[in-house]
Amino acid sequence: MIPERVTLVDVGPRDGLQNEKQPVSTAHKVALVQRLQAAGLREIEVTSFVSPKWVPQMGDAVSVMAAIERPPGVRHSVLVPNMKGLEAALPTRPDEVVVFASATEAFSQRNINCSIAESLARFEPVVAAAHAAGLKVRGAISCTVGCPYQGAVTPDEVERVVVGMKAIGVDHCGIADTIGVGTPRAVQAVLERALKHYPLHEVSGHFHDTYGQALANILASLELGLHTFDASIAGLGGCPYAKGATGNVATEDVVFMLHGMGIDTGIDLDALVEAGGFISEVLGREPVSRAGRALLTKRRAAAAAAAVEAA
Amino acid sequence: MIPERVTLVDVGPRDGLQNEKQPVSTAHKVALVQRLQAAGLREIEVTSFVSPKWVPQMGDAVSVMAAIERPPGVRHSVLVPNMKGLEAALPTRPDEVVVFASATEAFSQRNINCSIAESLARFEPVVAAAHAAGLKVRGAISCTVGCPYQGAVTPDEVERVVVGMKAIGVDHCGIADTIGVGTPRAVQAVLERALKHYPLHEVSGHFHDTYGQALANILASLELGLHTFDASIAGLGGCPYAKGATGNVATEDVVFMLHGMGIDTGIDLDALVEAGGFISEVLGREPVSRAGRALLTKRRAAAAAAAVEAA
Repeated sequence: MIPERVTLVDVGPRDGLQNEKQPVSTAHKVALVQRLQAAGLREIEVTSFVSPKWVPQMGDAVSVMAAIERPPGVRHSVLVPNMKGLEAALPTRPDEVVVFASATEAFSQRNINCSIAESLARFEPVVAAAHAAGLKVRGAISCTVGCPYQGAVTPDEVERVVVGMKAIGVDHCGIADTIGVGTPRAVQAVLERALKHYPLHEVSGHFHDTYGQALANILASLELGLHTFDASIAGLGGCPYAKGATGNVATEDVVFMLHGMGIDTGIDLDALVEAGGFISEVLGREPVSRAGRALLTKRRAAAAAAAVEAA
Repeated sequence: MIPERVTLVDVGPRDGLQNEKQPVSTAHKVALVQRLQAAGLREIEVTSFVSPKWVPQMGDAVSVMAAIERPPGVRHSVLVPNMKGLEAALPTRPDEVVVFASATEAFSQRNINCSIAESLARFEPVVAAAHAAGLKVRGAISCTVGCPYQGAVTPDEVERVVVGMKAIGVDHCGIADTIGVGTPRAVQAVLERALKHYPLHEVSGHFHDTYGQALANILASLELGLHTFDASIAGLGGCPYAKGATGNVATEDVVFMLHGMGIDTGIDLDALVEAGGFISEVLGREPVSRAGRALLTKRRAAAAAAAVEAA
């Protein structure tokens, strides 16, 4: 049942950096995407066409999309919050666009100031326009296991939004544990609801590691046959709902597990760790990835030993 | 197959503190054990009767054992490296003693300066004497998935040591991933070998979180029916083989997953998080537990909000 091959979508350049307070230059963003591609990532969430008033970090979306290399076989997605965002995104030729909704009314109101139904209604013409432009539409459902405002979330609540996403034509259903409170059985229960409406290859898991549960949740998802997961290089992103806590699961940790299990990802872990080290250095800190930190530490020790030998 | 109840052995006071460079006072150690007991831990690895020349942090083993409360139902174990250690330990009335061996010759030589066979031969009379004193003997096998000196370790190598442990009369077989490189399938393969020689209730998993894999490995172990795991409050211990990296899996993270899965541990997570906060404050740092950090952050925010309300 566990798949032999897994596709990882690195959301570090968008979901990750969007939640980092420190401004990152366009050149560094482009260099990060470049390094992820070189490491073997074939799906990258590059940027977001949101208002720079709300998210200054994503204000260079057009420049980033224009500057990155677009090698064949790599799919670049961008987040669009509305029709205006889609219209700004289209000339930059993304391969996919990402739309989103919350599994809870409380989060929807607090995060985007409208009800779940209103958010889906707003996205309906966006999805249609994206399809008309030949783009795939990926939907992200947040707070599918827990919500910072409501608390616990039921699979029924999530399924209603999955059905709503499908009704407006969204091609792919991403199940996000936005605050990282999910545990294996709870995550499986939610994924089973998504799988009632979308095929296995169009459901993905997006897990946060705030409580250290992300890899266990990915393992539980693999056991349902799921083979697409979001992850964020160096664990970029933090957690906006618990200051100082961990957010997105780190791509390095996921790849370490998958490769250890003999599951193919097409990713070169060494190059990936280097990419994580690069962007962490830009941010002036260590990667929020346990595998990344351990492997960088080993690499530095080996380099230091080699330098002593050479001297 | 997944058990409904899991027993956690908190090894923080011994395995954890032994690998912390900063000296911790006897009073703080006793207070930590007390808090773990109050949080519902029923098995605690308290201290080690090793030479204070080698491990100064454990130099107060007798005082710690004399000072802790010994409520009925709580089992206190101590590590003994040899007969001299056992003789020093016996008057302090531990419930169990822990002996150890490595799965690799390289680690055995570097860590305790003898071969695996020599270490088992040395422990044989220790086990006999412990049994004669009415004590249970727990065996810990290190480096069962990877070794810092040898690299990869095969299940065959581990099974040989399991058989050796059984031959000298060790009652319980702890399978340790000392450097944290294990992933779910590799861990299951090793546990299956241990389960050929010991019953389910006498095999435990001891996983390090150096590469972020510990909870996934515990989940994989639960799927084999395993229901006893070591964990270290606040992730005490670090990793002596990768400076700055994470060591023992944090008890808080394990309990968060188990309770989320509806598995009973008898532990009060709030009290556990408080115990982790206590010893981390003693060490002057944040807990190396993602769940611990997230829950402490939420608690502090709630306390700050309540203070504002009251003012």
